[in-house]
Amino acid sequence: MARTQGSHSDITGPRIRAAAQELFARHGFAAVSMRQIASHVGLQAGALYNYTSDKQSLLVELMQAHMEDLLTAWAAEPKPGDVMGCLEAFVRFHIRYNLQRSDAVFIAYMELRNLTPDNFRQIEAHRRAYEDQLEGVLKDGVEQGVFDVPDTKIAALAVIAMLNGVLTWYRDSGRLSLVEVETIYWDMVRKAVGV
Amino acid sequence: MARTQGSHSDITGPRIRAAAQELFARHGFAAVSMRQIASHVGLQAGALYNYTSDKQSLLVELMQAHMEDLLTAWAAEPKPGDVMGCLEAFVRFHIRYNLQRSDAVFIAYMELRNLTPDNFRQIEAHRRAYEDQLEGVLKDGVEQGVFDVPDTKIAALAVIAMLNGVLTWYRDSGRLSLVEVETIYWDMVRKAVGV
Repeated sequence: MARTQGSHSDITGPRIRAAAQELFARHGFAAVSMRQIASHVGLQAGALYNYTSDKQSLLVELMQAHMEDLLTAWAAEPKPGDVMGCLEAFVRFHIRYNLQRSDAVFIAYMELRNLTPDNFRQIEAHRRAYEDQLEGVLKDGVEQGVFDVPDTKIAALAVIAMLNGVLTWYRDSGRLSLVEVETIYWDMVRKAVGV
Repeated sequence: MARTQGSHSDITGPRIRAAAQELFARHGFAAVSMRQIASHVGLQAGALYNYTSDKQSLLVELMQAHMEDLLTAWAAEPKPGDVMGCLEAFVRFHIRYNLQRSDAVFIAYMELRNLTPDNFRQIEAHRRAYEDQLEGVLKDGVEQGVFDVPDTKIAALAVIAMLNGVLTWYRDSGRLSLVEVETIYWDMVRKAVGV
């Protein structure tokens, strides 16, 4: 049975995005050519353009998919009824989720300068939506007198920056398990925003 | 009076490094050619090689100068006799110093993957020396019962990551002054590592 164009594209599209993600993360967006991406998935350079219009489209697709998946996964995460439990859920979720996708996270932070202005605004809106999720928890906690932060926006940015730091040093084979790392960070975040 | 090669090099060398820093920060190391750097300082591409052997040397020189200046500046920073005061000095110093050198900091984090293994080890040693400064303060505080952190190494990495986050959003024209930002972060750090 002949493959339809649709099913062929369904298989090749994701392979192209996976190759682009791996190559962008390893060498940087600017250093990777469409020819390299094509060769990585066994396509002729020309054939790549049946699946994507250019390198910029690949970059923004990767970043957008990453941010949308992150927001969807956080929405699906079970959340306790209390703000303290919600904050703990966020801290553990953020570390765990991002460590499993370090290439995508790396690109999402490193390659912002290579986005066109329109694409940058789109990705920034997603990022802000995610930060707003954490800020919402912090605001609720401040209202309830459980947290004490003078500026919930900055506190949200500070917590996310602190948690992202884990990606720069954590190794599966290291001296601490993932749960131990989560717990150390949760302890610091809890105290940092506490009363 | 004819210029000596020495004095000529004294002027041109720093201009080349400044151009490289600006171009690497704006476009990324991989996307910048030696020709562009030469053109930025009004030299022929060939003449650039009188001052530097290659792009890798420029990159590691920039990173090394940044880390050495950072360590020297922190060593020269006045430090109170108590650990709490020392930690506050570190937090305020780190934010202030790095915000004034955002291009250098950006390159120091973004371009690590473009260093040769030997150069990477050298820059990592500098970075570790700086982290050790903060970890020393934290260890003293834990010994004295002023701080409570289960792992001083991770706490040092977490604090530095949190503080580096300021560079991604702070603008001189923003709603908060530099001192206000320093104080908000100091408040969070103090609580995060506190008893």
